[in-house]
Amino acid sequence: MKETLKLFKIGGGVLDDDAQLHRFVQAFAQVPGRKILVHGGGKGASQMLSDLGIAPQMVQGRRITDAATLDVVTMFYAGKTNKQLVALLQASGVNALGLSGADGNVIRAVKRPVKDIDYGFVGDLPANSVDAATLHTLIQAELTPVLCAITHDGHGQLLNTNADTIASTVARALAGRYEVELHYCFEKNGVLLDVNDDNSVIPQIVPAQYQQLKADGVIAAGMIPKLDNAFAALEAGVEKVVIEHALNINEPIKTVLCRS
Amino acid sequence: MKETLKLFKIGGGVLDDDAQLHRFVQAFAQVPGRKILVHGGGKGASQMLSDLGIAPQMVQGRRITDAATLDVVTMFYAGKTNKQLVALLQASGVNALGLSGADGNVIRAVKRPVKDIDYGFVGDLPANSVDAATLHTLIQAELTPVLCAITHDGHGQLLNTNADTIASTVARALAGRYEVELHYCFEKNGVLLDVNDDNSVIPQIVPAQYQQLKADGVIAAGMIPKLDNAFAALEAGVEKVVIEHALNINEPIKTVLCRS
Repeated sequence: MKETLKLFKIGGGVLDDDAQLHRFVQAFAQVPGRKILVHGGGKGASQMLSDLGIAPQMVQGRRITDAATLDVVTMFYAGKTNKQLVALLQASGVNALGLSGADGNVIRAVKRPVKDIDYGFVGDLPANSVDAATLHTLIQAELTPVLCAITHDGHGQLLNTNADTIASTVARALAGRYEVELHYCFEKNGVLLDVNDDNSVIPQIVPAQYQQLKADGVIAAGMIPKLDNAFAALEAGVEKVVIEHALNINEPIKTVLCRS
Repeated sequence: MKETLKLFKIGGGVLDDDAQLHRFVQAFAQVPGRKILVHGGGKGASQMLSDLGIAPQMVQGRRITDAATLDVVTMFYAGKTNKQLVALLQASGVNALGLSGADGNVIRAVKRPVKDIDYGFVGDLPANSVDAATLHTLIQAELTPVLCAITHDGHGQLLNTNADTIASTVARALAGRYEVELHYCFEKNGVLLDVNDDNSVIPQIVPAQYQQLKADGVIAAGMIPKLDNAFAALEAGVEKVVIEHALNINEPIKTVLCRS
Protein backbone atom coordinates (compact mmCIF):
# COMPACT_ATOMS: atom_id res chain seq x y z
CA MET A 1 0.00 0.00 0.00
CA LYS A 2 1.63 3.21 -1.17
CA GLU A 3 1.52 6.37 0.96
CA THR A 4 -0.60 9.27 -0.30
CA LEU A 5 1.23 12.36 -1.50
CA LYS A 6 -0.67 15.58 -2.15
CA LEU A 7 0.88 18.00 -4.61
CA PHE A 8 -0.61 21.51 -4.63
CA LYS A 9 0.01 24.07 -7.35
CA ILE A 10 -0.66 27.75 -6.68
CA GLY A 11 -0.22 30.74 -8.97
CA GLY A 12 -1.09 34.40 -9.33
CA GLY A 13 -3.92 35.78 -7.23
CA VAL A 14 -3.02 34.02 -3.99
CA LEU A 15 0.67 34.88 -4.54
CA ASP A 16 -0.12 38.54 -5.23
CA ASP A 17 -2.04 39.20 -2.02
CA ASP A 18 -0.34 38.89 1.38
CA ALA A 19 -3.56 38.19 3.26
CA GLN A 20 -4.58 35.43 0.82
CA LEU A 21 -1.08 33.96 0.92
CA HIS A 22 -1.15 33.77 4.70
CA ARG A 23 -4.57 32.08 4.57
CA PHE A 24 -3.33 29.56 2.02
CA VAL A 25 -0.20 28.79 4.09
CA GLN A 26 -2.34 28.16 7.17
CA ALA A 27 -4.63 25.85 5.21
CA PHE A 28 -1.71 24.03 3.56
CA ALA A 29 -0.13 23.49 6.99
CA GLN A 30 -3.32 21.70 8.06
CA VAL A 31 -3.23 19.23 5.16
CA PRO A 32 -2.19 15.93 6.75
CA GLY A 33 0.50 13.61 5.38
CA ARG A 34 3.16 13.93 2.71
CA LYS A 35 2.90 16.99 0.50
CA ILE A 36 4.63 19.16 -2.08
CA LEU A 37 3.94 22.75 -3.09
CA VAL A 38 4.60 24.08 -6.61
CA HIS A 39 4.26 27.81 -7.17
CA GLY A 40 4.20 30.03 -10.21
CA GLY A 41 5.13 33.66 -10.33
CA GLY A 42 2.40 36.18 -9.80
CA LYS A 43 2.43 39.80 -10.87
CA GLY A 44 5.43 40.84 -8.75
CA ALA A 45 7.97 39.68 -11.31
CA SER A 46 6.33 41.75 -14.08
CA GLN A 47 6.34 44.78 -11.79
CA MET A 48 10.00 44.27 -11.05
CA LEU A 49 10.89 43.92 -14.73
CA SER A 50 9.13 47.21 -15.30
CA ASP A 51 10.87 48.85 -12.30
CA LEU A 52 14.20 47.79 -13.79
CA GLY A 53 13.23 49.19 -17.19
CA ILE A 54 13.16 45.75 -18.85
CA ALA A 55 10.34 45.87 -21.40
CA PRO A 56 8.32 42.68 -21.95
CA GLN A 57 9.77 40.88 -24.97
CA MET A 58 6.97 39.73 -27.24
CA VAL A 59 7.21 37.85 -30.55
CA GLN A 60 3.99 37.13 -32.47
CA GLY A 61 2.04 37.87 -29.30
CA ARG A 62 4.01 35.33 -27.24
CA ARG A 63 6.15 36.31 -24.30
CA ILE A 64 9.88 35.64 -24.68
CA THR A 65 12.33 35.00 -21.85
CA ASP A 66 15.51 36.83 -22.81
CA ALA A 67 18.62 36.76 -20.57
CA ALA A 68 17.66 39.89 -18.61
CA THR A 69 14.13 38.59 -18.04
CA LEU A 70 15.44 35.18 -16.94
CA ASP A 71 17.69 36.89 -14.37
CA VAL A 72 14.76 38.77 -12.89
CA VAL A 73 12.29 35.88 -12.87
CA THR A 74 14.95 33.64 -11.29
CA MET A 75 15.50 36.22 -8.55
CA PHE A 76 11.81 36.70 -8.06
CA TYR A 77 10.57 33.10 -8.18
CA ALA A 78 13.55 31.26 -6.64
CA GLY A 79 14.57 34.14 -4.35
CA LYS A 80 11.69 36.24 -3.16
CA THR A 81 8.54 34.15 -3.65
CA ASN A 82 10.11 30.81 -2.81
CA LYS A 83 11.94 31.97 0.32
CA GLN A 84 8.96 33.97 1.60
CA LEU A 85 6.75 30.91 1.19
CA VAL A 86 9.31 28.67 2.90
CA ALA A 87 9.70 31.09 5.83
CA LEU A 88 5.91 31.39 6.24
CA LEU A 89 5.49 27.60 6.07
CA GLN A 90 8.24 27.12 8.66
CA ALA A 91 6.39 29.56 10.93
CA SER A 92 3.29 27.36 10.50
CA GLY A 93 5.12 24.18 11.48
CA VAL A 94 5.79 22.84 7.98
CA ASN A 95 9.42 21.82 7.44
CA ALA A 96 9.49 23.32 3.95
CA LEU A 97 12.51 23.11 1.65
CA GLY A 98 12.59 25.43 -1.35
CA LEU A 99 13.85 24.07 -4.64
CA SER A 100 14.46 25.11 -8.18
CA GLY A 101 14.87 22.30 -10.67
CA ALA A 102 18.65 22.76 -10.46
CA ASP A 103 18.73 22.00 -6.73
CA GLY A 104 19.52 18.33 -6.28
CA ASN A 105 18.99 18.14 -10.07
CA VAL A 106 15.33 17.46 -9.30
CA ILE A 107 14.05 18.81 -12.64
CA ARG A 108 16.29 18.77 -15.67
CA ALA A 109 14.62 20.53 -18.59
CA VAL A 110 15.41 21.03 -22.26
CA LYS A 111 15.54 24.53 -23.73
CA ARG A 112 12.53 24.84 -26.00
CA PRO A 113 13.63 24.21 -29.60
CA VAL A 114 13.30 27.17 -31.96
CA LYS A 115 10.62 26.58 -34.59
CA ASP A 116 8.45 29.54 -35.59
CA ILE A 117 9.30 31.42 -32.42
CA ASP A 118 12.44 31.54 -30.29
CA TYR A 119 10.99 31.60 -26.78
CA GLY A 120 14.42 32.21 -25.29
CA PHE A 121 15.36 30.65 -21.97
CA VAL A 122 12.24 28.54 -21.58
CA GLY A 123 12.44 24.91 -20.48
CA ASP A 124 10.27 22.03 -21.64
CA LEU A 125 10.01 18.85 -19.63
CA PRO A 126 10.56 15.63 -21.58
CA ALA A 127 10.03 12.18 -20.07
CA ASN A 128 12.52 11.42 -17.28
CA SER A 129 13.12 15.10 -16.50
CA VAL A 130 12.25 14.61 -12.81
CA ASP A 131 14.62 12.91 -10.35
CA ALA A 132 11.93 11.13 -8.36
CA ALA A 133 14.50 9.35 -6.16
CA THR A 134 15.91 12.61 -4.76
CA LEU A 135 12.43 14.07 -4.17
CA HIS A 136 11.48 10.81 -2.44
CA THR A 137 14.56 11.04 -0.20
CA LEU A 138 13.64 14.60 0.81
CA ILE A 139 10.01 13.67 1.45
CA GLN A 140 11.02 10.64 3.52
CA ALA A 141 13.28 12.96 5.56
CA GLU A 142 10.02 14.69 6.63
CA LEU A 143 10.74 17.70 4.40
CA THR A 144 8.07 19.39 2.28
CA PRO A 145 9.52 20.39 -1.10
CA VAL A 146 8.44 23.84 -2.36
CA LEU A 147 9.19 24.01 -6.06
CA CYS A 148 9.46 27.21 -8.05
CA ALA A 149 9.09 27.49 -11.82
CA ILE A 150 12.83 27.66 -12.57
CA THR A 151 14.61 24.57 -13.90
CA HIS A 152 18.02 23.94 -15.47
CA ASP A 153 19.41 22.11 -18.48
CA GLY A 154 22.22 20.27 -16.68
CA HIS A 155 24.82 22.33 -18.54
CA GLY A 156 24.71 25.39 -16.30
CA GLN A 157 21.75 27.16 -17.87
CA LEU A 158 18.69 28.05 -15.79
CA LEU A 159 15.34 27.95 -17.62
CA ASN A 160 11.92 29.50 -17.03
CA THR A 161 9.32 26.71 -16.96
CA ASN A 162 5.55 26.63 -16.75
CA ALA A 163 4.47 25.86 -13.18
CA ASP A 164 1.39 23.82 -14.24
CA THR A 165 3.69 21.64 -16.32
CA ILE A 166 6.11 21.24 -13.41
CA ALA A 167 3.22 20.21 -11.17
CA SER A 168 1.86 17.55 -13.53
CA THR A 169 5.32 16.25 -14.48
CA VAL A 170 6.40 15.89 -10.83
CA ALA A 171 3.05 14.27 -9.98
CA ARG A 172 3.50 11.69 -12.74
CA ALA A 173 7.12 11.01 -11.79
CA LEU A 174 6.16 10.28 -8.18
CA ALA A 175 3.15 8.13 -9.09
CA GLY A 176 5.31 5.00 -8.96
CA ARG A 177 6.19 5.64 -5.32
CA TYR A 178 3.04 7.31 -3.96
CA GLU A 179 -0.70 7.50 -4.50
CA VAL A 180 -0.45 11.02 -5.90
CA GLU A 181 -3.22 13.62 -5.69
CA LEU A 182 -2.55 16.62 -7.92
CA HIS A 183 -4.33 19.75 -6.68
CA TYR A 184 -4.62 22.73 -9.02
CA CYS A 185 -5.56 25.74 -6.90
CA PHE A 186 -6.96 28.82 -8.56
CA GLU A 187 -9.58 31.51 -8.03
CA LYS A 188 -12.72 29.45 -8.67
CA ASN A 189 -14.24 26.70 -6.57
CA GLY A 190 -13.74 24.11 -9.29
CA VAL A 191 -14.86 23.38 -12.84
CA LEU A 192 -18.12 25.29 -13.36
CA LEU A 193 -21.15 24.07 -15.30
CA ASP A 194 -22.01 27.73 -15.83
CA VAL A 195 -18.97 30.01 -15.97
CA ASN A 196 -21.07 32.86 -14.56
CA ASP A 197 -22.27 30.89 -11.57
CA ASP A 198 -19.65 30.20 -8.91
CA ASN A 199 -22.05 27.77 -7.28
CA SER A 200 -22.25 25.49 -10.33
CA VAL A 201 -19.16 23.44 -9.43
CA ILE A 202 -19.16 19.96 -10.97
CA PRO A 203 -18.14 17.70 -8.03
CA GLN A 204 -16.64 14.88 -10.08
CA ILE A 205 -15.72 14.24 -13.73
CA VAL A 206 -14.64 10.97 -15.31
CA PRO A 207 -13.12 10.84 -18.83
CA ALA A 208 -16.35 9.96 -20.69
CA GLN A 209 -18.22 12.83 -19.02
CA TYR A 210 -15.37 15.18 -19.85
CA GLN A 211 -15.58 14.34 -23.54
CA GLN A 212 -19.33 15.00 -23.41
CA LEU A 213 -18.92 18.30 -21.55
CA LYS A 214 -16.34 19.41 -24.11
CA ALA A 215 -18.58 18.37 -27.01
CA ASP A 216 -21.48 20.27 -25.46
CA GLY A 217 -19.31 23.39 -25.15
CA VAL A 218 -19.88 23.50 -21.39
CA ILE A 219 -16.21 23.72 -20.39
CA ALA A 220 -14.76 27.23 -20.62
CA ALA A 221 -12.14 27.41 -23.37
CA GLY A 222 -9.44 28.52 -20.92
CA MET A 223 -9.96 25.41 -18.80
CA ILE A 224 -9.57 22.92 -21.65
CA PRO A 225 -5.73 22.73 -21.82
CA LYS A 226 -5.62 22.42 -18.00
CA LEU A 227 -8.18 19.62 -18.02
CA ASP A 228 -6.61 17.83 -20.98
CA ASN A 229 -3.34 17.81 -19.00
CA ALA A 230 -5.17 16.65 -15.90
CA PHE A 231 -6.70 13.65 -17.64
CA ALA A 232 -3.36 12.84 -19.23
CA ALA A 233 -1.83 12.83 -15.73
CA LEU A 234 -4.52 10.38 -14.59
CA GLU A 235 -3.74 8.11 -17.51
CA ALA A 236 -0.06 8.29 -16.55
CA GLY A 237 -0.74 6.97 -13.06
CA VAL A 238 -1.74 9.99 -10.97
CA GLU A 239 -4.55 8.85 -8.68
CA LYS A 240 -6.72 11.93 -8.59
CA VAL A 241 -6.65 15.50 -9.90
CA VAL A 242 -8.46 18.14 -7.88
CA ILE A 243 -9.43 21.58 -9.15
CA GLU A 244 -10.22 23.92 -6.27
CA HIS A 245 -10.03 27.42 -4.85
CA ALA A 246 -6.65 28.24 -3.27
CA LEU A 247 -8.43 29.49 -0.16
CA ASN A 248 -10.70 26.45 0.23
CA ILE A 249 -8.33 23.50 0.01
CA ASN A 250 -9.67 21.97 3.21
CA GLU A 251 -13.33 22.57 2.27
CA PRO A 252 -15.48 19.95 0.48
CA ILE A 253 -16.33 22.19 -2.49
CA LYS A 254 -14.10 21.25 -5.45
CA THR A 255 -13.98 19.27 -8.68
CA VAL A 256 -12.36 15.85 -8.52
CA LEU A 257 -11.17 14.28 -11.76
CA CYS A 258 -10.66 10.53 -11.66
CA ARG A 259 -10.27 7.62 -14.00
CA SER A 260 -13.67 6.05 -13.28
CA MET B 1 36.43 7.44 12.75
CA LYS B 2 34.39 10.38 11.53
CA GLU B 3 34.22 11.31 7.83
CA THR B 4 35.93 14.51 6.73
CA LEU B 5 33.67 17.38 5.64
CA LYS B 6 35.14 20.40 3.89
CA LEU B 7 33.20 23.64 4.16
CA PHE B 8 34.25 26.41 1.76
CA LYS B 9 33.20 30.02 2.11
CA ILE B 10 33.46 32.37 -0.87
CA GLY B 11 32.55 36.04 -1.14
CA GLY B 12 32.96 39.07 -3.38
CA GLY B 13 35.71 39.00 -5.98
CA VAL B 14 35.17 35.46 -7.17
CA LEU B 15 31.38 36.01 -7.18
CA ASP B 16 31.71 39.25 -9.15
CA ASP B 17 33.67 37.82 -12.05
CA ASP B 18 32.17 35.12 -14.28
CA ALA B 19 35.55 33.74 -15.37
CA GLN B 20 36.78 33.46 -11.77
CA LEU B 21 33.49 31.91 -10.69
CA HIS B 22 33.76 29.24 -13.38
CA ARG B 23 37.35 28.50 -12.31
CA PHE B 24 36.29 28.22 -8.68
CA VAL B 25 33.39 25.90 -9.55
CA GLN B 26 35.74 23.62 -11.53
CA ALA B 27 38.19 23.50 -8.63
CA PHE B 28 35.44 22.92 -6.05
CA ALA B 29 34.09 20.05 -8.17
CA GLN B 30 37.51 18.39 -7.90
CA VAL B 31 37.59 18.52 -4.10
CA PRO B 32 37.02 14.90 -3.04
CA GLY B 33 34.57 13.79 -0.36
CA ARG B 34 31.78 15.49 1.56
CA LYS B 35 31.58 19.25 1.15
CA ILE B 36 29.48 22.35 1.69
CA LEU B 37 29.67 25.75 0.02
CA VAL B 38 28.70 28.99 1.77
CA HIS B 39 28.54 32.14 -0.32
CA GLY B 40 28.20 35.81 0.45
CA GLY B 41 26.84 38.45 -1.84
CA GLY B 42 29.26 40.27 -4.03
CA LYS B 43 28.77 43.64 -5.66
CA GLY B 44 25.77 42.64 -7.79
CA ALA B 45 23.27 43.17 -4.99
CA SER B 46 24.52 46.74 -4.42
CA GLN B 47 24.27 47.43 -8.13
CA MET B 48 20.72 46.12 -8.17
CA LEU B 49 19.71 48.21 -5.17
CA SER B 50 21.03 51.22 -7.03
CA ASP B 51 19.24 50.20 -10.28
CA LEU B 52 16.00 50.01 -8.30
CA GLY B 53 16.63 53.44 -6.76
CA ILE B 54 17.04 52.03 -3.24
CA ALA B 55 19.68 54.18 -1.54
CA PRO B 56 22.06 52.43 0.90
CA GLN B 57 20.69 52.94 4.41
CA MET B 58 23.51 53.96 6.74
CA VAL B 59 23.33 54.78 10.46
CA GLN B 60 26.53 55.89 12.23
CA GLY B 61 28.52 54.56 9.31
CA ARG B 62 26.95 51.09 9.55
CA ARG B 63 24.85 49.60 6.81
CA ILE B 64 21.23 48.91 7.71
CA THR B 65 19.01 46.24 6.15
CA ASP B 66 15.59 47.85 5.78
CA ALA B 67 12.62 45.94 4.31
CA ALA B 68 13.30 47.03 0.72
CA THR B 69 16.99 46.12 1.01
CA LEU B 70 16.14 42.73 2.52
CA ASP B 71 13.83 42.01 -0.42
CA VAL B 72 16.58 42.74 -2.92
CA VAL B 73 19.37 40.89 -1.11
CA THR B 74 17.07 37.88 -0.67
CA MET B 75 16.35 37.88 -4.40
CA PHE B 76 19.98 38.36 -5.24
CA TYR B 77 21.64 35.94 -2.82
CA ALA B 78 18.97 33.20 -2.61
CA GLY B 79 17.69 33.67 -6.16
CA LYS B 80 20.36 34.75 -8.59
CA THR B 81 23.72 33.92 -6.97
CA ASN B 82 22.60 30.72 -5.29
CA LYS B 83 20.79 29.27 -8.31
CA GLN B 84 23.57 30.24 -10.74
CA LEU B 85 26.11 28.53 -8.49
CA VAL B 86 23.93 25.44 -8.15
CA ALA B 87 23.38 25.22 -11.93
CA LEU B 88 27.13 25.61 -12.60
CA LEU B 89 27.99 23.00 -9.97
CA GLN B 90 25.44 20.58 -11.44
CA ALA B 91 27.08 21.07 -14.84
CA SER B 92 30.39 20.12 -13.19
CA GLY B 93 29.01 16.92 -11.73
CA VAL B 94 28.35 18.18 -8.19
CA ASN B 95 24.85 17.35 -6.93
CA ALA B 96 24.43 20.78 -5.35
CA LEU B 97 21.35 21.80 -3.37
CA GLY B 98 20.87 25.50 -2.68
CA LEU B 99 19.62 26.53 0.74
CA SER B 100 18.72 29.60 2.71
CA GLY B 101 18.56 29.14 6.45
CA ALA B 102 14.76 28.90 6.15
CA ASP B 103 14.95 25.82 3.90
CA GLY B 104 14.62 22.75 6.07
CA ASN B 105 15.00 25.20 8.97
CA VAL B 106 18.74 24.63 8.69
CA ILE B 107 19.69 28.01 10.21
CA ARG B 108 17.33 29.73 12.58
CA ALA B 109 18.64 33.17 13.50
CA VAL B 110 17.62 35.89 15.93
CA LYS B 111 17.01 39.44 14.70
CA ARG B 112 19.86 41.54 16.03
CA PRO B 113 18.67 43.35 19.18
CA VAL B 114 18.53 47.14 18.93
CA LYS B 115 21.14 48.78 21.16
CA ASP B 116 22.89 51.88 19.81
CA ILE B 117 21.96 51.03 16.24
CA ASP B 118 18.92 49.33 14.74
CA TYR B 119 20.51 47.20 12.02
CA GLY B 120 17.10 46.26 10.68
CA PHE B 121 16.52 42.77 9.28
CA VAL B 122 19.89 41.33 10.26
CA GLY B 123 20.18 37.90 11.87
CA ASP B 124 22.62 36.84 14.56
CA LEU B 125 23.35 33.18 15.19
CA PRO B 126 23.11 32.05 18.81
CA ALA B 127 24.12 28.58 19.96
CA ASN B 128 21.87 25.87 18.50
CA SER B 129 20.88 27.97 15.50
CA VAL B 130 21.96 25.26 13.05
CA ASP B 131 19.93 22.08 12.47
CA ALA B 132 22.91 19.77 12.05
CA ALA B 133 20.67 16.69 11.73
CA THR B 134 18.95 17.98 8.58
CA LEU B 135 22.25 19.07 6.99
CA HIS B 136 23.67 15.64 7.86
CA THR B 137 20.69 13.94 6.18
CA LEU B 138 21.22 15.97 3.00
CA ILE B 139 24.97 15.30 2.99
CA GLN B 140 24.43 11.58 3.51
CA ALA B 141 22.00 11.65 0.56
CA GLU B 142 25.06 12.59 -1.56
CA LEU B 143 23.90 16.20 -1.87
CA THR B 144 26.24 19.18 -1.54
CA PRO B 145 24.53 22.01 0.37
CA VAL B 146 25.12 25.50 -1.06
CA LEU B 147 24.18 28.01 1.62
CA CYS B 148 23.44 31.66 0.96
CA ALA B 149 23.60 34.42 3.56
CA ILE B 150 19.85 34.59 4.19
CA THR B 151 18.38 33.01 7.31
CA HIS B 152 15.00 33.18 9.06
CA ASP B 153 13.70 33.67 12.59
CA GLY B 154 11.22 30.78 12.60
CA HIS B 155 8.31 33.23 12.74
CA GLY B 156 8.15 34.00 9.03
CA GLN B 157 10.81 36.70 8.87
CA LEU B 158 13.83 36.33 6.60
CA LEU B 159 17.07 37.89 7.87
CA ASN B 160 20.31 39.04 6.23
CA THR B 161 23.22 37.26 7.92
CA ASN B 162 26.99 37.53 7.63
CA ALA B 163 28.31 34.70 5.44
CA ASP B 164 31.56 34.28 7.47
CA THR B 165 29.44 33.80 10.58
CA ILE B 166 27.22 31.27 8.78
CA ALA B 167 30.32 29.35 7.67
CA SER B 168 31.87 29.14 11.13
CA THR B 169 28.55 28.41 12.87
CA VAL B 170 27.70 25.59 10.46
CA ALA B 171 31.25 24.23 10.74
CA ARG B 172 30.99 24.11 14.54
CA ALA B 173 27.53 22.56 14.45
CA LEU B 174 28.73 19.72 12.20
CA ALA B 175 31.92 19.11 14.19
CA GLY B 176 30.16 16.47 16.28
CA ARG B 177 29.38 14.40 13.19
CA TYR B 178 32.37 15.09 10.92
CA GLU B 179 36.03 16.05 11.03
CA VAL B 180 35.31 19.54 9.72
CA GLU B 181 37.74 21.64 7.70
CA LEU B 182 36.61 25.25 7.38
CA HIS B 183 38.05 26.94 4.28
CA TYR B 184 37.86 30.73 4.02
CA CYS B 185 38.53 31.63 0.40
CA PHE B 186 39.48 35.17 -0.50
CA GLU B 187 41.77 37.11 -2.82
CA LYS B 188 45.11 36.41 -1.11
CA ASN B 189 47.04 33.16 -0.91
CA GLY B 190 46.72 33.01 2.88
CA VAL B 191 47.75 35.00 5.95
CA LEU B 192 50.71 37.14 4.91
CA LEU B 193 53.75 37.92 7.02
CA ASP B 194 54.15 41.06 4.93
CA VAL B 195 50.85 42.46 3.65
CA ASN B 196 52.65 43.85 0.59
CA ASP B 197 54.22 40.54 -0.35
CA ASP B 198 51.84 37.94 -1.75
CA ASN B 199 54.60 35.35 -1.43
CA SER B 200 54.93 35.76 2.34
CA VAL B 201 52.16 33.28 3.18
CA ILE B 202 52.49 31.75 6.65
CA PRO B 203 51.90 28.02 6.03
CA GLN B 204 50.65 27.14 9.51
CA ILE B 205 49.64 29.00 12.66
CA VAL B 206 48.89 27.53 16.08
CA PRO B 207 47.22 29.60 18.83
CA ALA B 208 50.42 30.59 20.68
CA GLN B 209 52.02 31.80 17.44
CA TYR B 210 48.89 33.74 16.59
CA GLN B 211 49.00 35.61 19.89
CA GLN B 212 52.66 36.46 19.19
CA LEU B 213 51.94 37.59 15.62
CA LYS B 214 49.11 39.78 16.89
CA ALA B 215 51.31 41.22 19.66
CA ASP B 216 54.05 41.95 17.09
CA GLY B 217 51.54 43.76 14.88
CA VAL B 218 52.26 41.40 11.98
CA ILE B 219 48.66 40.45 11.26
CA ALA B 220 46.76 42.99 9.14
CA ALA B 221 44.00 44.66 11.18
CA GLY B 222 41.31 43.50 8.75
CA MET B 223 42.31 39.86 9.24
CA ILE B 224 42.10 39.90 13.04
CA PRO B 225 38.32 39.40 13.45
CA LYS B 226 38.42 36.60 10.84
CA LEU B 227 41.31 34.87 12.61
CA ASP B 228 39.83 35.35 16.07
CA ASN B 229 36.70 33.61 14.77
CA ALA B 230 38.80 30.91 13.15
CA PHE B 231 40.61 30.07 16.39
CA ALA B 232 37.30 30.14 18.27
CA ALA B 233 35.96 27.60 15.75
CA LEU B 234 38.98 25.37 16.40
CA GLU B 235 38.35 25.55 20.14
CA ALA B 236 34.73 24.61 19.47
CA GLY B 237 35.73 21.39 17.73
CA VAL B 238 36.45 22.32 14.12
CA GLU B 239 39.49 20.30 13.04
CA LYS B 240 41.25 22.76 10.82
CA VAL B 241 40.71 26.26 9.42
CA VAL B 242 42.27 27.06 6.07
CA ILE B 243 42.76 30.55 4.66
CA GLU B 244 43.41 30.43 0.92
CA HIS B 245 42.88 32.04 -2.46
CA ALA B 246 39.49 31.18 -4.02
CA LEU B 247 41.25 30.23 -7.25
CA ASN B 248 43.89 28.01 -5.61
CA ILE B 249 41.89 25.71 -3.37
CA ASN B 250 43.55 22.60 -4.78
CA GLU B 251 47.07 24.12 -4.65
CA PRO B 252 49.40 23.65 -1.67
CA ILE B 253 49.85 27.38 -1.00
CA LYS B 254 47.59 28.40 1.93
CA THR B 255 47.57 29.09 5.64
CA VAL B 256 46.37 26.28 7.90
CA LEU B 257 45.23 27.14 11.39
CA CYS B 258 45.18 24.28 13.84
CA ARG B 259 45.01 23.67 17.55
CA SER B 260 48.58 22.45 17.94
